[in-house]
Amino acid sequence: MKYAIILGNLGNTNDRFLSSGYKDQPSKEEMIKRAAAIEGVEGVELVGTWDITSENVEQVGGLLSKYNLKCASIIPDHFAQKRWGSGAFSSKDPAIRAQAVEETAKMAEAARALGCDLLSLWPGQDGYDYPLQADYRQERQWIEEGVRGLARSYPQTRFALEYKAKEPRTHSTLARVADTLLTVQETGRANVGVTIDTGHAYVAGEVVGESIVLAKRAGNKLIHMHFNDKNASWDDATIVGAVHSIAYIETLYWLDRTGYTGWLSMDQYPYREDGAAAIGESILWLNRFDEIMQPQRAEIDRLIALDDAIETSRFLRKAMLGA
Amino acid sequence: MKYAIILGNLGNTNDRFLSSGYKDQPSKEEMIKRAAAIEGVEGVELVGTWDITSENVEQVGGLLSKYNLKCASIIPDHFAQKRWGSGAFSSKDPAIRAQAVEETAKMAEAARALGCDLLSLWPGQDGYDYPLQADYRQERQWIEEGVRGLARSYPQTRFALEYKAKEPRTHSTLARVADTLLTVQETGRANVGVTIDTGHAYVAGEVVGESIVLAKRAGNKLIHMHFNDKNASWDDATIVGAVHSIAYIETLYWLDRTGYTGWLSMDQYPYREDGAAAIGESILWLNRFDEIMQPQRAEIDRLIALDDAIETSRFLRKAMLGA
Amino acid sequence: MKYAIILGNLGNTNDRFLSSGYKDQPSKEEMIKRAAAIEGVEGVELVGTWDITSENVEQVGGLLSKYNLKCASIIPDHFAQKRWGSGAFSSKDPAIRAQAVEETAKMAEAARALGCDLLSLWPGQDGYDYPLQADYRQERQWIEEGVRGLARSYPQTRFALEYKAKEPRTHSTLARVADTLLTVQETGRANVGVTIDTGHAYVAGEVVGESIVLAKRAGNKLIHMHFNDKNASWDDATIVGAVHSIAYIETLYWLDRTGYTGWLSMDQYPYREDGAAAIGESILWLNRFDEIMQPQRAEIDRLIALDDAIETSRFLRKAMLGA
Amino acid sequence: MKYAIILGNLGNTNDRFLSSGYKDQPSKEEMIKRAAAIEGVEGVELVGTWDITSENVEQVGGLLSKYNLKCASIIPDHFAQKRWGSGAFSSKDPAIRAQAVEETAKMAEAARALGCDLLSLWPGQDGYDYPLQADYRQERQWIEEGVRGLARSYPQTRFALEYKAKEPRTHSTLARVADTLLTVQETGRANVGVTIDTGHAYVAGEVVGESIVLAKRAGNKLIHMHFNDKNASWDDATIVGAVHSIAYIETLYWLDRTGYTGWLSMDQYPYREDGAAAIGESILWLNRFDEIMQPQRAEIDRLIALDDAIETSRFLRKAMLGA
Repeated sequence: MKYAIILGNLGNTNDRFLSSGYKDQPSKEEMIKRAAAIEGVEGVELVGTWDITSENVEQVGGLLSKYNLKCASIIPDHFAQKRWGSGAFSSKDPAIRAQAVEETAKMAEAARALGCDLLSLWPGQDGYDYPLQADYRQERQWIEEGVRGLARSYPQTRFALEYKAKEPRTHSTLARVADTLLTVQETGRANVGVTIDTGHAYVAGEVVGESIVLAKRAGNKLIHMHFNDKNASWDDATIVGAVHSIAYIETLYWLDRTGYTGWLSMDQYPYREDGAAAIGESILWLNRFDEIMQPQRAEIDRLIALDDAIETSRFLRKAMLGA
Repeated sequence: MKYAIILGNLGNTNDRFLSSGYKDQPSKEEMIKRAAAIEGVEGVELVGTWDITSENVEQVGGLLSKYNLKCASIIPDHFAQKRWGSGAFSSKDPAIRAQAVEETAKMAEAARALGCDLLSLWPGQDGYDYPLQADYRQERQWIEEGVRGLARSYPQTRFALEYKAKEPRTHSTLARVADTLLTVQETGRANVGVTIDTGHAYVAGEVVGESIVLAKRAGNKLIHMHFNDKNASWDDATIVGAVHSIAYIETLYWLDRTGYTGWLSMDQYPYREDGAAAIGESILWLNRFDEIMQPQRAEIDRLIALDDAIETSRFLRKAMLGA
Repeated sequence: MKYAIILGNLGNTNDRFLSSGYKDQPSKEEMIKRAAAIEGVEGVELVGTWDITSENVEQVGGLLSKYNLKCASIIPDHFAQKRWGSGAFSSKDPAIRAQAVEETAKMAEAARALGCDLLSLWPGQDGYDYPLQADYRQERQWIEEGVRGLARSYPQTRFALEYKAKEPRTHSTLARVADTLLTVQETGRANVGVTIDTGHAYVAGEVVGESIVLAKRAGNKLIHMHFNDKNASWDDATIVGAVHSIAYIETLYWLDRTGYTGWLSMDQYPYREDGAAAIGESILWLNRFDEIMQPQRAEIDRLIALDDAIETSRFLRKAMLGA
Repeated sequence: MKYAIILGNLGNTNDRFLSSGYKDQPSKEEMIKRAAAIEGVEGVELVGTWDITSENVEQVGGLLSKYNLKCASIIPDHFAQKRWGSGAFSSKDPAIRAQAVEETAKMAEAARALGCDLLSLWPGQDGYDYPLQADYRQERQWIEEGVRGLARSYPQTRFALEYKAKEPRTHSTLARVADTLLTVQETGRANVGVTIDTGHAYVAGEVVGESIVLAKRAGNKLIHMHFNDKNASWDDATIVGAVHSIAYIETLYWLDRTGYTGWLSMDQYPYREDGAAAIGESILWLNRFDEIMQPQRAEIDRLIALDDAIETSRFLRKAMLGA
C-alpha cells in the first residue's frame, strides 16, 4: 500500500457557482507540508500549470526533498487553460494539438528531473457536448497519434491514460476502461497504459475489480490508480467509503491478485472539508479494507470459484461487520 | 425489529427470457414452512391471486396458525393478471377500475379474517410507457378516488401505497415518495399512507433516511417498510448489504428516530439463490446494522447536529469496520 | 410564448478545472444589449450579487428600460458566496439563515422597484454531501420557515422554489418537484409555488409534462419555467432540442392545457458557445415545437384519451418529421 | 436499408409479474406471416429453442420460403433454459460450457441450411449478480475460448457478439461495445465481430454513432445492428423514435459513413402493443430519419469538421423539424 495524493486536493476548491472558491489557496510549500503530514502519504502527484511548470521544477523538487515526498506522477495540464477549451490532443486546430504534445513533453522532462517515470494523462477537454459535433474517428485517431509519438520520444516514461465518461465535456473521448484500452493497444507502445480512477469507473457503470481485470487481460496495462468515492452518476470525488464499502474490498482483492504494484493515489475534491483530513480519512478506510481483505485472500479465491451468493454474503458480513 | 417476508420470495422466479422460471414452485404449505424456519421471521405478506384469494382464506389462515406466523399484510393483485395490463386503479376502462377496487375490498376482508389490518397497495401496472400516452392528471385522480373510497369503506384497515419509479411500466404513476405523499394527502383519510421499499427508493435516486423523514413530516404517513438492495438504476431486489452498507445504518437510525413501529418486511427476488437463505442473510445484515447503530444513537444525533463530514467518516469507519 | 433569459447566460462560463473561465466577462450593459438583440426575448432574470444588488437597482432598471426589457424575475444569491457554502436557508448557523432571509428580502424590494413581482429561489447550497451529515427534518423545516416568513412579509411578491436533485451539493434538499410541492404546501401561503427547470426535471428522472400536472394538482402551484436540455444524469444545461424532441412537445402541451401563463425563461450554461446564439437557438426550437403542437391540441387530447402507443407514434412521426 | 425483425417480437410478451403473458402466443406460421406483412421487412432473426431447433429447420425454412423472407440471423439460445441460469459460455460447470458451444454449433448448421451466414450471440446469462461472485478473468476467458473454437470450426459463419450492460444478470460480462471488441480481438478470428443494439448502447451510456466508430476502428468489426428505443437506464425496447430523435439521424449517418451494409434488425419488446404495428412504426421512423439524413450527408460532413454547436443546432432544427 504505497499512498500518494494529488497535491491540488489540499488547495482551494470551486465550482461554476462559486468560482472564487469555497476555501483559500495555501502556498505551494504549505500544501506540500500538509501532504507530508498525512499519515501514510509517501508521494504526490503534481498537476501541470497548477503545481508544476518547466520553470519551477527545481523549486518543487527542493520542496519535495525537504518534506521527504516522492513525485508519484505528473498530470500535464490539458484542461485548465482557455486554449484547451475545445480539446487538446484532439482539437480541430493543429496548432493546439501540437501544443498538447509539447506541454506533455515538457512534463516528461520535468518528471525525469524529479526522478519520476510516470505521466498520468487526463485529456479532459477532449470530447464533445452536442450530437453531430465530433468526428469520433478522427479525434480518437489524433489522441492515439499524440500519445504514440510521446511514448516513442520518451521510452523511459510510462504514460497512463485516465478515462472519465464526462465532465468537463458532456462526453469524453476516453470514456471507459475498455475504449481506453483499445486506444492504448493501437499506440502499439509498451510504455502506454491506463489510470483507473474509482469514481470515474463508478460513473461509467463499471465494477472496478472487473476494470482492473480488463486492463490485466489487455497486456498488463494498469499503470496507476486514483481513489475516491461518489454517489449516483457524477464525479463527486468524496472520501473513500462514504458510499461504497464492499466495492473497495473487491478492488483491493483484484489489485492484489493481478499483481498491481503501483501507487494508490488519492484524487478527491473536498469542496467544503479540510483537504488533509479528508485524504487522511480515505487512507484509513483503505487501510482498514485491506486489513479485512488480506487475511482472507485464499477464502475469497475459494468463494469466487464457488459462485454462491449466499456464502459470499455470509463471508462479507462477518469479515466486514464482525458478525 | 419485527421481521416479515413476502411469501413469494420463497417460490419460483422468472423473467422475460425464462418465463417458466429459474427454480421449481413449492407448495403453499412448503413456502410457509420455509418462512417459519427463517430465524427472526414473525410474519408473512401475502400477495393476492398468487398466495391468497377470497376462496382460500381459511386454508391460508390455518397454515399460518400451524407455523405460528402472523399475516403482516396483504398485497392485493393489481399486476399479475392480463386484465390489469394497461392499468388497474387508473385503467381507462371504468370496468377495470371497478374491478381494481373490488379486488382490494376482497383482500381487506381477507386481511380482517386473518387478523391483519394492513394492505400494501402496489399499483404496478398504473403508469405509462410512451410520451403523450397518459393523462397524468386524470389517472392520478382515479388512483386517489379508488383509494379514498376504499379507505372510507374500511376505516379499520390501513392502506399503504408503495411507489416505484418503473417496471413493469417504463413510468409508474406512484413513482417517488413525495408524489405518493401528495396523493395520500389528497385522499384526506387518516388510514392511508406509504410503503417505502429501500430498492425502489434507491432506483428513484432517494436517500431512504430522507424519504422516511418526508413521510414523517407529511403527517406520520410511513406505514410499512420493504427491504432489499440493488445496483445502479434497476430494481434488482438483492440481499440487503450486497451493495449498500452505510445507507442501512442511516435508514435504521431514521426509522428509530421517527418512531417507526411497523414491520421490516423482506421483499427480494432471489432469481438464482435459495430464497430462504437469501432472506435469512438480509435479516442477519439488518440485525448487524442495527447492533452497530443502536448503541450509537446519541452519538449520531450529535454528528447530525455537528455537520462535519470528517467526524462522521471517522465515526462510521470505527462503528462499522471496527477501526 | 413569453420568453426571458437569465442574464448570466450571456457572460463568462467556468468550471472547477478552468475557474477563470472559457470566455471573457462582458459588461452588464453589453449583456443586457445582447439579451435585447435575441429574437423573441422580452424579459431577463437577474441573479443577486452577479447582476443585481440593493445598490445598483436604479442603474439596472435604467439599462432594462433603455433596451426595452422587463425584469422577469430576480434569483437571489444563495449560492455564490463563501458564506452560503454549507447552506443558506438551512445552514446550521442561525446567523447565516438570517442572512439568507435578509438577502431575499432585499431582492424582493429590488424586484418591486423594477416592477417585478417574482422571485425564483434556488437554494442550491441547501443540501448535503455525506450520509449522516444532515438533519433532514430540521433543515427542510428551516427552509419552510424562511420562505413562509418572506411570503408573509411580501404578500405581493410570488416566491417560486426551484428544485434540483444535486449540484453544487451531492444532494439538494429541494430535489424533485413533489418534495418541493410538499414544502410549498407546508408554508400555507398562496404566493409560494415552484419553478420547474426542464433539465433539473430530467436529472430527477421526471417527465416534465407530469411534473407540470403535479404542480397543477397541488393547487395551481407552477409559477415559473426554466428551459434547457441535457444528456443522461447531469445538469448540462445545453441548447433546447440538443437531446430531447418529443419531450418538449409534450411539455408545451401540458403547459397549455394547465393554463400556464408565465415566462418561458432560458436557463442554459453555454460553456464554449456564443451565449446569445445558443439562447436564440433554444427559442427557435421551442417556437417550432409549439408550432407543431398548437394546431394539434385537440388531436393530442384525443390521443391521450385513447391510450394507443401505435397511434401516438404515427401522430408524432407525421407532426414532427412531416411523414 | 435492409430491414429484418426478431421473430419473437410478434409473439407473446411477459415479465416477472405476469409470467403467462400480456398477450396470446400465435403459431409459428402466423408470426412469420405477420412479419412478411410488415412493409419493408425482408428478413427474420430466429431465436434458438423459441423459433428454431435442429429438428424443425426444414419446416421453418419452408415457411420462410412460402412468405418470401430471408433468415437474417440465428440467435442461439443461451438464456431461455434453466440450464443456462448461472451462465452458458462462462458457466463454472464445464458440462454447461460444452453445451453452450454445442448449441451454437447446431445453430451454425441450421443457419447454413437456411442459407444464412450470421449468428448473433447474446450470452445474456453470462455475468454476475453479486460482488465477489465472479472470476472476471476466467469467465471472460471462457467466453473467448468458446467463441474462438466456434469461429474456427465454422469459418464461413460470422459470429456477432451482442453486448448489454445488465438483465437478466445485474452485470453482464459482455457489457459495452469496447470490452466486447477487446474480447473479439482476443479471439483472433476474422469472422468474429459485434452486434450493436441501440437500446443496449443507450443503457451503457454510449452514443451509438461513437460505438459504431469504435467497432470500425477495431478492424471493421460491426457485423449486425438491432434497433429499438428506451427511457433512462433500462432496456425498455420500445418503438424507435419514442424517446430519441437526433440520435437515430447520427446513427444512420455513421452507419453510412463507415460503410455498413448489414441488416437493420428490429429488436423490440412490445409488452402491450400489437407487435407488427410496433415494428412497422419503427421502420417508418427509421426510413424518415434516413430520408432526412441522406440528402444532407455532405452537409453533415462539413458540420462535423466545423465543430460549431450553434451551426449544428440550426441545421438539425431545419432538417428535422422543417424550420
